Amino acid sequence: MTMRVFVLALVLTFIPLSGVFAKNAKYVFLFIGDGMGMPQRIAAEQYTGKKLLMNSFPAQGITTTHAADRFITGSAASATAMASGTKTNIGVIGMDPALRPVKTLAELAKEKGMKVGIVSSVSIDHATPAAFYAHVPRRSQYYDIDVAIANSGFDYFGGGGLKDVTNKKNNSKNYVGNAMDLIKKNGYKVVTDKAEFMALNAADGKVLAYNNWLQDGKALPYDMDKRSRDISLKEFTAKGIELLDNDKGFFMMVEAGKIDWACHANDATASIKDTLVFDDAISEAYEFYKKHPAETLIVVTGDHECGGLTLGYAGTKYATNFDVLGKQNLSFQKFTDEVLGKFKQGSDKSFNAMKPIITQHFGLTFEGNGPLALQAHEIKALKGAFDRSMKGEQEKSKNPETYVLYGGYEPLSVSITHILNQKAGLAWTSYKHTGVPVATSAVGVSAGLFNGYYDNVDIAKKTMDIMGIDEKIHYAEKSPINDVTFAAVN
Amino acid sequence: MTMRVFVLALVLTFIPLSGVFAKNAKYVFLFIGDGMGMPQRIAAEQYTGKKLLMNSFPAQGITTTHAADRFITGSAASATAMASGTKTNIGVIGMDPALRPVKTLAELAKEKGMKVGIVSSVSIDHATPAAFYAHVPRRSQYYDIDVAIANSGFDYFGGGGLKDVTNKKNNSKNYVGNAMDLIKKNGYKVVTDKAEFMALNAADGKVLAYNNWLQDGKALPYDMDKRSRDISLKEFTAKGIELLDNDKGFFMMVEAGKIDWACHANDATASIKDTLVFDDAISEAYEFYKKHPAETLIVVTGDHECGGLTLGYAGTKYATNFDVLGKQNLSFQKFTDEVLGKFKQGSDKSFNAMKPIITQHFGLTFEGNGPLALQAHEIKALKGAFDRSMKGEQEKSKNPETYVLYGGYEPLSVSITHILNQKAGLAWTSYKHTGVPVATSAVGVSAGLFNGYYDNVDIAKKTMDIMGIDEKIHYAEKSPINDVTFAAVN
Repeated sequence: MTMRVFVLALVLTFIPLSGVFAKNAKYVFLFIGDGMGMPQRIAAEQYTGKKLLMNSFPAQGITTTHAADRFITGSAASATAMASGTKTNIGVIGMDPALRPVKTLAELAKEKGMKVGIVSSVSIDHATPAAFYAHVPRRSQYYDIDVAIANSGFDYFGGGGLKDVTNKKNNSKNYVGNAMDLIKKNGYKVVTDKAEFMALNAADGKVLAYNNWLQDGKALPYDMDKRSRDISLKEFTAKGIELLDNDKGFFMMVEAGKIDWACHANDATASIKDTLVFDDAISEAYEFYKKHPAETLIVVTGDHECGGLTLGYAGTKYATNFDVLGKQNLSFQKFTDEVLGKFKQGSDKSFNAMKPIITQHFGLTFEGNGPLALQAHEIKALKGAFDRSMKGEQEKSKNPETYVLYGGYEPLSVSITHILNQKAGLAWTSYKHTGVPVATSAVGVSAGLFNGYYDNVDIAKKTMDIMGIDEKIHYAEKSPINDVTFAAVN
Repeated sequence: MTMRVFVLALVLTFIPLSGVFAKNAKYVFLFIGDGMGMPQRIAAEQYTGKKLLMNSFPAQGITTTHAADRFITGSAASATAMASGTKTNIGVIGMDPALRPVKTLAELAKEKGMKVGIVSSVSIDHATPAAFYAHVPRRSQYYDIDVAIANSGFDYFGGGGLKDVTNKKNNSKNYVGNAMDLIKKNGYKVVTDKAEFMALNAADGKVLAYNNWLQDGKALPYDMDKRSRDISLKEFTAKGIELLDNDKGFFMMVEAGKIDWACHANDATASIKDTLVFDDAISEAYEFYKKHPAETLIVVTGDHECGGLTLGYAGTKYATNFDVLGKQNLSFQKFTDEVLGKFKQGSDKSFNAMKPIITQHFGLTFEGNGPLALQAHEIKALKGAFDRSMKGEQEKSKNPETYVLYGGYEPLSVSITHILNQKAGLAWTSYKHTGVPVATSAVGVSAGLFNGYYDNVDIAKKTMDIMGIDEKIHYAEKSPINDVTFAAVN
């Protein structure tokens, strides 16, 4: 019966404390792995052979993710659900399906006098972070979202850059000046240099920080492409805790956005490495939790699975060999942009010249019998993809037969990661998100509420409850923070 | 704070009762969906548009499944883990990796004086059911397993047939006579007629019942192929409850074994229909639970995922259309055995003659633009598979390129279900099991223990605990029930 006593103790630890011996969480972390389903978590764990911190949290639940208008959700609808408890349509940020703005956990925390931080490894105006501070009908309204940052009153934005501070894409009807100027005018210290970033402290006031090198779409580099002078997601998280820590508490959302991008491109190694640095970022919060166990809640979830990753491949049957992924030394993105880009400018553009480059960066060998030796039909597939890449043929879903092969990505790059992943015993079914549920993990105040099987709107509702906020949809006729964005809606 | 009060009530309901106000579960159900991962459950739910009973249970956990010697497990190792709490090697039944026999939940229940029932939709000597009553180093020792049934002393075996009662495959070194004769000699009433089955009652004593028509491998027909004169998994479960109900309680294991077989063959519709009848079988236990809520525990889990099913396909991007699966009116197995078998004997063996047959049984159309209209490259793939099928070429993993396409199945059948599944927005990565975790659901006495994230050995340990059995591995020098099988080990 030892276990029952243990479980009783465990259950008592997680019983919601209000009413009886009530206390709300003062420090609240919400970690969102974009595109991080269970296969992504287990793949990372199997790759390192070490249990992920998030997988060891005492509360673990199964979370469904559908949007109001589609079974397979998108980041905007899913983040809106988790930020506000509102089930909404694909592409909508911080509003219900009728486009009524809804207050978010971050805004409600701010109203309570808590400090608020938003961190993402992709652009800080991307759908997931935006759903915590902006309210726009379309996620592509990057200029309006950038203005919402300026008007948010939030204390810390960290990670990737801003996609459209000048409305150059003309997605907004309400141009009110350069958004970066507004951000600075509204008191934000803007930092991009790593040394300056590391030296930031609470006396610096409101901060917007992004890494100097933004690899693609204003995002941080993939963790596997990161140089020592780049700021990692772990460092952005640690600095956030340092800047936000105060007597009235804080709410911080941290997104690992490039797990999703790696999975869209079917690059398991890049996904795994970004999942591992995400777990490292979570460990920063966990260290904080250990110092304030009775006042801290950490929730870790995904907004949806991406890529249809599974841990088993037809060609390898029951075998897996995750070690082979360690031979890949750059992401599909860096390979495409830098290695293949340079190759296309070179003098020898033959497939034979490409072979040693593939071996160098992915370990796949064109001869021999090792675990990374290519079979005849795999070499044929690579050669076909190489020819398409050299001709500049990136299928943009026009041809259904080749779209399934390449998904609109650089044919050679995606074919290489497909084959390497398959040799590990991993495979993909899609270049988009899927409808399989994700795992949600929690530790700290009332974490037990995150056990069970529930929908992504419940992430917001449970968190509100634990923060001492009425767990309902908080409609706002006008944004408490950001009038400009709402003007765009009406 | 309403939710907190509700959760407090919920938590109190599920607090283990021993020690304080102790009571062990008297009626224990373990439902195992073979090959049933989360995608299988969600696919069934989306197909009907109705929440599955198992998905509505108050306790829901995430369960990892690896074997002692392989990341991707098999049914023997996984069922042994769930039956005894012992992590063992691939293919081993009811023994640890050193081949020491370990007592199972079913045997331990029998020792406590409870009645025991074992139900499966595949042969009753298949790995999953066998792991509850047999102890053999190799799952292929069907004769030894059949003898173990005779010697088990268990009260009810129902579902599929027996694979080798005469040791014709010579997998055993201990022939002790026809196993069916032994079963009858040991007091079992053997029933195969549906009317006789439905009339069984407690006065009949020990029963072994199997359906008259065993479709493949001595298994029940797929639920979608079932005729009214066949006994369903739901009926085998209901009868089990009727026969086992007694003052000292019972333990019943019910396996839906053909979810796995359908997934090996990548037939989503057959998997979904067998998952739905499994949920119906669970509803029989749930009705019993409602009458005895303070004494009943129902646990539902899977032994592993199978097929690498995901709910998203490259070709359909973010769209899903589960309705198209409703056009399929027989399983891949029945199509292969009966329809294609007959076609191969016919006079017109052309692809054109096959086209209307495909439309008739799977809804796929060779002209037009509807959701089931085949595209040019899909027709080409079907034609290639048709040609292979007509030539009798079933790839048995010799050619890695075609093995990935057909997995050793009838090329035409598997190509049809692939394409139909893809039109629904479903896709597969393997013809074998995968390493993605499964969901475990529970309701009843101490069900809350099944929340969280844990390994399949914990299914046995938690269940033992709730049954008032010391939660350890119970080694047996000799089987308490079945000497014969152990002789084979030494």
